Amino acid sequence: MSATLLPASSHRRVPWKNGGGYTTELVVRPDGDATGSAQGPFTWRLSIATVDRDGGFSAFPGVDRSLMALSPGGLGLVDGGHPVALGRYGVHRFAGENDVAAIGVTVPTLDLNLMTRRDACTGVLEHLRLDAPAGTPRELAAPPGGAVVVVLLAGTLHVDDQLLKPHDAVLIERTCQADDGALRLSGDADVAVASVYPLPGEGFTRTVS
Amino acid sequence: MSATLLPASSHRRVPWKNGGGYTTELVVRPDGDATGSAQGPFTWRLSIATVDRDGGFSAFPGVDRSLMALSPGGLGLVDGGHPVALGRYGVHRFAGENDVAAIGVTVPTLDLNLMTRRDACTGVLEHLRLDAPAGTPRELAAPPGGAVVVVLLAGTLHVDDQLLKPHDAVLIERTCQADDGALRLSGDADVAVASVYPLPGEGFTRTVS
Repeated sequence: MSATLLPASSHRRVPWKNGGGYTTELVVRPDGDATGSAQGPFTWRLSIATVDRDGGFSAFPGVDRSLMALSPGGLGLVDGGHPVALGRYGVHRFAGENDVAAIGVTVPTLDLNLMTRRDACTGVLEHLRLDAPAGTPRELAAPPGGAVVVVLLAGTLHVDDQLLKPHDAVLIERTCQADDGALRLSGDADVAVASVYPLPGEGFTRTVS
Repeated sequence: MSATLLPASSHRRVPWKNGGGYTTELVVRPDGDATGSAQGPFTWRLSIATVDRDGGFSAFPGVDRSLMALSPGGLGLVDGGHPVALGRYGVHRFAGENDVAAIGVTVPTLDLNLMTRRDACTGVLEHLRLDAPAGTPRELAAPPGGAVVVVLLAGTLHVDDQLLKPHDAVLIERTCQADDGALRLSGDADVAVASVYPLPGEGFTRTVS
Protein backbone atom coordinates (compact mmCIF):
# COMPACT_ATOMS: atom_id res chain seq x y z
CA MET A 1 0.00 0.00 0.00
CA SER A 2 1.54 3.30 -1.03
CA ALA A 3 -0.35 6.20 0.53
CA THR A 4 1.06 9.70 0.42
CA LEU A 5 0.17 12.39 2.95
CA LEU A 6 -0.36 15.78 1.33
CA PRO A 7 -0.42 18.32 4.18
CA ALA A 8 -2.50 21.44 3.62
CA SER A 9 0.62 23.49 4.37
CA SER A 10 2.33 22.03 1.27
CA HIS A 11 -0.52 22.61 -1.21
CA ARG A 12 0.51 24.89 -4.07
CA ARG A 13 -1.21 28.21 -4.70
CA VAL A 14 -1.65 28.89 -8.42
CA PRO A 15 -3.39 31.72 -10.30
CA TRP A 16 -6.70 31.13 -12.06
CA LYS A 17 -6.61 30.73 -15.82
CA ASN A 18 -8.81 33.83 -16.16
CA GLY A 19 -6.73 35.83 -13.67
CA GLY A 20 -9.66 36.36 -11.32
CA GLY A 21 -8.28 34.63 -8.27
CA TYR A 22 -6.15 31.82 -6.85
CA THR A 23 -6.52 28.10 -6.47
CA THR A 24 -4.87 25.81 -3.96
CA GLU A 25 -3.71 22.70 -5.77
CA LEU A 26 -3.84 19.39 -3.90
CA VAL A 27 -2.92 17.03 -6.74
CA VAL A 28 -2.17 17.51 -10.44
CA ARG A 29 -1.24 14.69 -12.82
CA PRO A 30 1.10 14.62 -14.55
CA ASP A 31 3.05 16.73 -12.07
CA GLY A 32 3.28 20.32 -13.27
CA ASP A 33 5.52 23.11 -12.16
CA ALA A 34 4.25 25.52 -9.57
CA THR A 35 3.64 28.36 -11.99
CA GLY A 36 2.29 26.63 -15.05
CA SER A 37 0.15 23.72 -13.94
CA ALA A 38 -3.16 25.59 -13.82
CA GLN A 39 -2.68 26.80 -17.38
CA GLY A 40 -1.10 23.75 -18.93
CA PRO A 41 -2.61 20.47 -19.95
CA PHE A 42 -3.30 18.05 -17.16
CA THR A 43 -4.80 14.58 -17.03
CA TRP A 44 -6.56 15.34 -13.77
CA ARG A 45 -6.42 17.87 -11.00
CA LEU A 46 -7.90 18.28 -7.52
CA SER A 47 -7.90 21.78 -6.08
CA ILE A 48 -9.63 24.16 -3.68
CA ALA A 49 -10.76 27.57 -4.95
CA THR A 50 -11.95 30.62 -3.08
CA VAL A 51 -14.92 32.39 -4.61
CA ASP A 52 -14.89 35.98 -3.32
CA ARG A 53 -17.71 37.39 -5.40
CA ASP A 54 -20.14 36.61 -8.18
CA GLY A 55 -18.52 35.83 -11.51
CA GLY A 56 -17.90 33.39 -14.35
CA PHE A 57 -15.58 30.37 -14.15
CA SER A 58 -12.70 29.79 -16.55
CA ALA A 59 -13.53 27.58 -19.54
CA PHE A 60 -11.82 24.18 -19.63
CA PRO A 61 -12.61 22.63 -23.03
CA GLY A 62 -12.33 18.83 -23.07
CA VAL A 63 -12.47 18.63 -19.29
CA ASP A 64 -15.21 17.19 -17.05
CA ARG A 65 -15.63 18.95 -13.73
CA SER A 66 -17.11 18.12 -10.34
CA LEU A 67 -17.43 20.95 -7.83
CA MET A 68 -18.18 20.48 -4.12
CA ALA A 69 -19.28 23.45 -2.00
CA LEU A 70 -17.25 23.47 1.24
CA SER A 71 -18.52 26.49 3.15
CA PRO A 72 -21.47 26.29 5.58
CA GLY A 73 -23.65 28.46 3.33
CA GLY A 74 -23.14 26.29 0.26
CA LEU A 75 -22.77 27.89 -3.16
CA GLY A 76 -25.14 29.16 -5.81
CA LEU A 77 -24.26 28.49 -9.45
CA VAL A 78 -25.77 29.19 -12.82
CA ASP A 79 -24.88 26.47 -15.35
CA GLY A 80 -25.83 27.32 -18.92
CA GLY A 81 -28.60 29.57 -17.68
CA HIS A 82 -29.98 27.06 -15.18
CA PRO A 83 -29.67 27.77 -11.45
CA VAL A 84 -27.98 25.15 -9.23
CA ALA A 85 -28.21 25.62 -5.46
CA LEU A 86 -25.53 23.55 -3.69
CA GLY A 87 -25.81 22.91 0.02
CA ARG A 88 -22.64 22.36 2.03
CA TYR A 89 -20.83 19.29 0.58
CA GLY A 90 -23.24 19.17 -2.34
CA VAL A 91 -21.61 18.33 -5.70
CA HIS A 92 -22.36 19.67 -9.16
CA ARG A 93 -20.93 17.88 -12.18
CA PHE A 94 -20.58 19.79 -15.44
CA ALA A 95 -18.62 20.01 -18.67
CA GLY A 96 -15.69 22.45 -18.69
CA GLU A 97 -17.16 24.03 -21.84
CA ASN A 98 -20.31 25.10 -20.00
CA ASP A 99 -20.92 28.73 -19.19
CA VAL A 100 -20.90 28.53 -15.36
CA ALA A 101 -20.93 31.38 -12.86
CA ALA A 102 -21.20 31.81 -9.10
CA ILE A 103 -24.13 33.89 -7.91
CA GLY A 104 -25.35 35.27 -4.60
CA VAL A 105 -21.86 35.25 -3.07
CA THR A 106 -21.82 37.48 0.00
CA VAL A 107 -18.87 35.98 1.90
CA PRO A 108 -15.73 34.25 0.57
CA THR A 109 -16.69 30.67 -0.15
CA LEU A 110 -14.52 27.61 -0.69
CA ASP A 111 -15.12 24.86 -3.20
CA LEU A 112 -13.29 21.63 -4.00
CA ASN A 113 -12.78 20.96 -7.71
CA LEU A 114 -12.04 17.71 -9.49
CA MET A 115 -11.14 18.07 -13.17
CA THR A 116 -10.57 15.11 -15.48
CA ARG A 117 -9.55 15.24 -19.14
CA ARG A 118 -12.43 13.62 -20.98
CA ASP A 119 -10.24 11.74 -23.47
CA ALA A 120 -8.05 10.22 -20.76
CA CYS A 121 -9.92 9.51 -17.56
CA THR A 122 -13.10 9.89 -15.55
CA GLY A 123 -13.64 10.85 -11.95
CA VAL A 124 -16.09 10.99 -9.09
CA LEU A 125 -16.16 13.45 -6.19
CA GLU A 126 -18.15 12.50 -3.10
CA HIS A 127 -18.79 13.53 0.46
CA LEU A 128 -18.51 10.73 3.02
CA ARG A 129 -19.49 10.97 6.65
CA LEU A 130 -17.26 9.12 9.12
CA ASP A 131 -18.11 8.23 12.70
CA ALA A 132 -15.67 5.56 13.84
CA PRO A 133 -13.91 5.36 17.23
CA ALA A 134 -10.13 4.88 17.15
CA GLY A 135 -10.45 1.26 18.26
CA THR A 136 -12.71 0.31 15.37
CA PRO A 137 -11.51 2.15 12.27
CA ARG A 138 -13.38 1.93 8.98
CA GLU A 139 -11.52 0.62 5.95
CA LEU A 140 -11.65 2.64 2.77
CA ALA A 141 -10.57 0.30 0.00
CA ALA A 142 -9.22 2.01 -3.09
CA PRO A 143 -10.28 0.24 -6.27
CA PRO A 144 -7.51 -1.31 -8.36
CA GLY A 145 -6.09 0.88 -11.07
CA GLY A 146 -7.60 4.14 -9.93
CA ALA A 147 -6.27 6.99 -7.87
CA VAL A 148 -8.07 8.00 -4.69
CA VAL A 149 -7.67 11.17 -2.65
CA VAL A 150 -9.19 11.55 0.80
CA VAL A 151 -9.48 15.15 2.01
CA LEU A 152 -10.43 16.11 5.56
CA LEU A 153 -13.12 18.78 5.37
CA ALA A 154 -14.18 19.13 9.00
CA GLY A 155 -13.89 17.22 12.25
CA THR A 156 -11.24 14.87 13.57
CA LEU A 157 -9.69 12.24 11.31
CA HIS A 158 -6.95 9.69 11.73
CA VAL A 159 -5.72 7.89 8.62
CA ASP A 160 -3.59 4.89 9.48
CA ASP A 161 -2.92 6.40 12.94
CA GLN A 162 -1.84 9.76 11.49
CA LEU A 163 -3.88 12.75 12.69
CA LEU A 164 -4.92 15.00 9.82
CA LYS A 165 -5.50 18.73 9.85
CA PRO A 166 -8.32 20.37 7.87
CA HIS A 167 -7.61 20.16 4.11
CA ASP A 168 -4.81 17.66 4.63
CA ALA A 169 -5.19 14.93 2.03
CA VAL A 170 -4.05 11.34 1.53
CA LEU A 171 -3.40 10.02 -1.98
CA ILE A 172 -3.29 6.43 -3.19
CA GLU A 173 -2.32 5.64 -6.78
CA ARG A 174 -1.87 2.68 -9.07
CA THR A 175 -2.86 -0.08 -6.72
CA CYS A 176 -3.39 -3.45 -8.30
CA GLN A 177 -5.23 -5.52 -5.71
CA ALA A 178 -8.01 -3.85 -3.75
CA ASP A 179 -6.27 -4.96 -0.55
CA ASP A 180 -3.23 -2.89 -1.51
CA GLY A 181 -5.17 0.32 -1.21
CA ALA A 182 -7.10 0.05 2.03
CA LEU A 183 -6.84 3.03 4.37
CA ARG A 184 -7.93 2.76 8.02
CA LEU A 185 -9.98 5.83 8.89
CA SER A 186 -11.13 6.74 12.38
CA GLY A 187 -12.65 9.82 13.95
CA ASP A 188 -15.73 11.98 13.62
CA ALA A 189 -15.35 13.77 10.33
CA ASP A 190 -16.68 14.95 7.03
CA VAL A 191 -14.35 13.84 4.26
CA ALA A 192 -14.26 14.32 0.51
CA VAL A 193 -13.21 11.35 -1.60
CA ALA A 194 -12.09 11.92 -5.17
CA SER A 195 -11.54 8.85 -7.34
CA VAL A 196 -10.05 8.92 -10.83
CA TYR A 197 -9.93 6.10 -13.37
CA PRO A 198 -8.05 5.85 -16.66
CA LEU A 199 -10.20 5.22 -19.74
CA PRO A 200 -9.53 2.37 -22.13
CA GLY A 201 -8.49 3.00 -25.70
CA GLU A 202 -5.74 5.55 -25.35
CA GLY A 203 -4.90 6.97 -28.77
CA PHE A 204 -8.18 6.06 -30.45
CA THR A 205 -10.26 8.61 -32.31
CA ARG A 206 -13.13 9.26 -29.94
CA THR A 207 -16.28 11.28 -30.15
CA VAL A 208 -16.03 13.73 -27.30
CA SER A 209 -19.50 15.00 -26.55
CA MET B 1 -6.73 -11.95 -20.50
CA SER B 2 -10.29 -13.08 -20.05
CA ALA B 3 -12.50 -11.67 -22.79
CA THR B 4 -16.03 -12.96 -23.28
CA LEU B 5 -17.87 -12.75 -26.60
CA LEU B 6 -21.52 -11.76 -26.14
CA PRO B 7 -23.20 -12.45 -29.50
CA ALA B 8 -26.17 -10.26 -30.39
CA SER B 9 -28.20 -13.45 -30.83
CA SER B 10 -27.76 -14.27 -27.12
CA HIS B 11 -28.75 -10.85 -25.74
CA ARG B 12 -31.80 -11.04 -23.46
CA ARG B 13 -34.99 -9.13 -24.24
CA VAL B 14 -36.58 -7.72 -21.06
CA PRO B 15 -39.64 -5.51 -20.57
CA TRP B 16 -39.24 -1.84 -19.64
CA LYS B 17 -39.86 -0.95 -16.00
CA ASN B 18 -42.76 1.29 -17.10
CA GLY B 19 -44.19 -1.36 -19.43
CA GLY B 20 -43.84 0.85 -22.50
CA GLY B 21 -41.48 -1.31 -24.50
CA TYR B 22 -38.58 -3.77 -24.52
CA THR B 23 -34.87 -3.57 -23.93
CA THR B 24 -32.15 -5.86 -25.19
CA GLU B 25 -29.75 -6.53 -22.37
CA LEU B 26 -26.07 -6.95 -23.22
CA VAL B 27 -24.61 -7.08 -19.69
CA VAL B 28 -26.11 -6.83 -16.21
CA ARG B 29 -24.08 -7.07 -12.98
CA PRO B 30 -24.71 -8.87 -10.78
CA ASP B 31 -26.25 -11.39 -13.13
CA GLY B 32 -30.03 -11.23 -12.99
CA ASP B 33 -32.60 -13.67 -14.20
CA ALA B 34 -34.14 -13.12 -17.60
CA THR B 35 -37.47 -11.84 -16.32
CA GLY B 36 -36.50 -9.76 -13.31
CA SER B 37 -33.25 -8.04 -14.09
CA ALA B 38 -34.73 -4.87 -15.57
CA GLN B 39 -36.84 -4.28 -12.48
CA GLY B 40 -34.44 -5.43 -9.80
CA PRO B 41 -31.42 -3.76 -8.30
CA PHE B 42 -28.29 -3.90 -10.43
CA THR B 43 -24.80 -2.51 -9.97
CA TRP B 44 -24.51 -1.70 -13.66
CA ARG B 45 -26.24 -2.55 -16.89
CA LEU B 46 -25.58 -2.08 -20.61
CA SER B 47 -28.58 -2.42 -22.90
CA ILE B 48 -30.10 -1.38 -26.22
CA ALA B 49 -33.59 0.09 -26.28
CA THR B 50 -35.93 0.77 -29.16
CA VAL B 51 -37.79 4.06 -29.01
CA ASP B 52 -40.90 3.73 -31.18
CA ARG B 53 -42.57 7.02 -30.40
CA ASP B 54 -42.32 10.12 -28.21
CA GLY B 55 -42.60 9.43 -24.50
CA GLY B 56 -41.04 9.58 -21.05
CA PHE B 57 -38.30 7.28 -19.78
CA SER B 58 -38.61 5.15 -16.65
CA ALA B 59 -37.19 6.73 -13.49
CA PHE B 60 -34.09 5.06 -12.02
CA PRO B 61 -33.42 6.72 -8.65
CA GLY B 62 -29.82 6.44 -7.50
CA VAL B 63 -28.61 5.54 -10.98
CA ASP B 64 -26.41 7.55 -13.37
CA ARG B 65 -27.18 7.07 -17.04
CA SER B 66 -25.37 7.55 -20.33
CA LEU B 67 -27.42 7.21 -23.52
CA MET B 68 -25.93 6.92 -27.02
CA ALA B 69 -28.13 7.44 -30.09
CA LEU B 70 -27.46 4.62 -32.56
CA SER B 71 -29.77 5.34 -35.50
CA PRO B 72 -28.70 7.53 -38.45
CA GLY B 73 -31.19 10.26 -37.54
CA GLY B 74 -29.93 10.57 -33.96
CA LEU B 75 -32.41 11.17 -31.15
CA GLY B 76 -34.11 14.18 -29.65
CA LEU B 77 -34.50 14.33 -25.86
CA VAL B 78 -35.92 16.70 -23.32
CA ASP B 79 -34.06 16.49 -20.00
CA GLY B 80 -35.71 18.38 -17.16
CA GLY B 81 -37.32 20.74 -19.64
CA HIS B 82 -34.12 21.37 -21.61
CA PRO B 83 -33.86 20.06 -25.20
CA VAL B 84 -30.91 17.81 -26.10
CA ALA B 85 -30.35 16.99 -29.79
CA LEU B 86 -28.14 13.92 -30.15
CA GLY B 87 -26.53 13.17 -33.48
CA ARG B 88 -25.73 9.57 -34.37
CA TYR B 89 -23.34 8.19 -31.72
CA GLY B 90 -23.76 11.29 -29.60
CA VAL B 91 -23.98 10.63 -25.85
CA HIS B 92 -26.10 12.29 -23.19
CA ARG B 93 -25.30 11.72 -19.54
CA PHE B 94 -28.04 12.30 -16.96
CA ALA B 95 -29.26 11.30 -13.52
CA GLY B 96 -31.85 8.51 -13.42
CA GLU B 97 -34.06 10.80 -11.30
CA ASN B 98 -34.34 13.34 -14.13
CA ASP B 99 -37.57 13.74 -16.04
CA VAL B 100 -36.38 12.69 -19.52
CA ALA B 101 -38.46 12.08 -22.64
CA ALA B 102 -37.85 11.33 -26.31
CA ILE B 103 -39.30 13.85 -28.74
CA GLY B 104 -39.66 14.14 -32.51
CA VAL B 105 -39.53 10.37 -32.99
CA THR B 106 -40.88 9.51 -36.47
CA VAL B 107 -39.19 6.15 -37.05
CA PRO B 108 -38.16 3.46 -34.53
CA THR B 109 -34.81 4.55 -33.13
CA LEU B 110 -32.20 2.54 -31.22
CA ASP B 111 -30.16 3.76 -28.29
CA LEU B 112 -27.42 2.20 -26.19
CA ASN B 113 -27.79 2.70 -22.43
CA LEU B 114 -25.20 2.45 -19.69
CA MET B 115 -26.60 2.58 -16.16
CA THR B 116 -24.41 2.63 -13.06
CA ARG B 117 -25.56 2.65 -9.44
CA ARG B 118 -24.23 5.91 -8.01
CA ASP B 119 -23.27 4.45 -4.64
CA ALA B 120 -21.30 1.58 -6.16
CA CYS B 121 -19.61 2.50 -9.42
CA THR B 122 -19.17 5.02 -12.20
CA GLY B 123 -19.13 4.56 -15.95
CA VAL B 124 -18.29 6.16 -19.27
CA LEU B 125 -19.89 5.46 -22.64
CA GLU B 126 -18.00 6.53 -25.74
CA HIS B 127 -17.97 6.19 -29.49
CA LEU B 128 -14.65 5.19 -31.01
CA ARG B 129 -13.84 5.16 -34.70
CA LEU B 130 -11.62 2.31 -35.90
CA ASP B 131 -9.74 2.15 -39.19
CA ALA B 132 -7.09 -0.54 -38.88
CA PRO B 133 -6.16 -3.15 -41.50
CA ALA B 134 -6.05 -6.77 -40.31
CA GLY B 135 -2.26 -6.79 -40.44
CA THR B 136 -1.90 -3.85 -38.09
CA PRO B 137 -4.58 -4.16 -35.41
CA ARG B 138 -5.07 -1.47 -32.78
CA GLU B 139 -4.77 -2.46 -29.14
CA LEU B 140 -7.53 -1.44 -26.79
CA ALA B 141 -6.10 -1.74 -23.29
CA ALA B 142 -8.66 -2.19 -20.58
CA PRO B 143 -7.69 -0.35 -17.41
CA PRO B 144 -7.01 -2.45 -14.32
CA GLY B 145 -9.94 -3.06 -12.06
CA GLY B 146 -12.65 -1.88 -14.40
CA ALA B 147 -14.97 -3.69 -16.75
CA VAL B 148 -14.95 -2.79 -20.43
CA VAL B 149 -17.50 -3.71 -23.08
CA VAL B 150 -16.81 -3.17 -26.79
CA VAL B 151 -19.95 -3.17 -28.98
CA LEU B 152 -19.86 -3.23 -32.78
CA LEU B 153 -22.24 -0.54 -34.01
CA ALA B 154 -21.53 -0.48 -37.76
CA GLY B 155 -18.87 -1.70 -40.18
CA THR B 156 -16.49 -4.61 -40.04
CA LEU B 157 -14.69 -5.52 -36.84
CA HIS B 158 -12.37 -8.31 -35.81
CA VAL B 159 -11.55 -8.66 -32.12
CA ASP B 160 -8.61 -10.98 -31.52
CA ASP B 161 -9.24 -12.54 -34.97
CA GLN B 162 -12.93 -13.16 -34.28
CA LEU B 163 -15.31 -11.49 -36.76
CA LEU B 164 -18.14 -9.68 -34.98
CA LYS B 165 -21.67 -9.08 -36.21
CA PRO B 166 -23.51 -5.81 -35.51
CA HIS B 167 -24.36 -5.49 -31.81
CA ASP B 168 -22.06 -8.35 -30.88
CA ALA B 169 -20.10 -7.32 -27.82
CA VAL B 170 -16.89 -8.32 -26.08
CA LEU B 171 -16.59 -8.01 -22.29
CA ILE B 172 -13.46 -7.82 -20.15
CA GLU B 173 -13.75 -7.79 -16.36
CA ARG B 174 -11.54 -7.65 -13.31
CA THR B 175 -8.18 -7.35 -14.99
CA CYS B 176 -5.31 -6.46 -12.74
CA GLN B 177 -2.46 -5.43 -15.00
CA ALA B 178 -3.33 -3.26 -18.01
CA ASP B 179 -1.57 -5.83 -20.21
CA ASP B 180 -4.09 -8.47 -19.11
CA GLY B 181 -6.93 -6.62 -20.76
CA ALA B 182 -5.63 -5.66 -24.19
CA LEU B 183 -7.90 -6.52 -27.13
CA ARG B 184 -6.58 -6.44 -30.68
CA LEU B 185 -9.13 -4.68 -32.88
CA SER B 186 -9.00 -4.49 -36.67
CA GLY B 187 -11.42 -3.43 -39.36
CA ASP B 188 -13.30 -0.34 -40.45
CA ALA B 189 -15.93 0.18 -37.81
CA ASP B 190 -17.82 2.39 -35.43
CA VAL B 191 -17.68 0.89 -31.95
CA ALA B 192 -19.12 1.82 -28.59
CA VAL B 193 -16.92 1.36 -25.56
CA ALA B 194 -18.50 1.24 -22.11
CA SER B 195 -16.16 1.27 -19.12
CA VAL B 196 -17.27 0.78 -15.53
CA TYR B 197 -15.23 1.33 -12.36
CA PRO B 198 -16.00 0.43 -8.75
CA LEU B 199 -16.00 3.33 -6.28
CA PRO B 200 -13.95 3.31 -3.10
CA GLY B 201 -15.59 3.30 0.30
CA GLU B 202 -18.20 0.58 0.02
CA GLY B 203 -20.49 0.74 3.03
CA PHE B 204 -19.76 4.36 3.95
CA THR B 205 -22.53 6.92 4.44
CA ARG B 206 -22.27 9.04 1.33
CA THR B 207 -24.00 12.14 0.12
CA VAL B 208 -25.63 11.12 -3.13
CA SER B 209 -26.38 14.25 -5.10
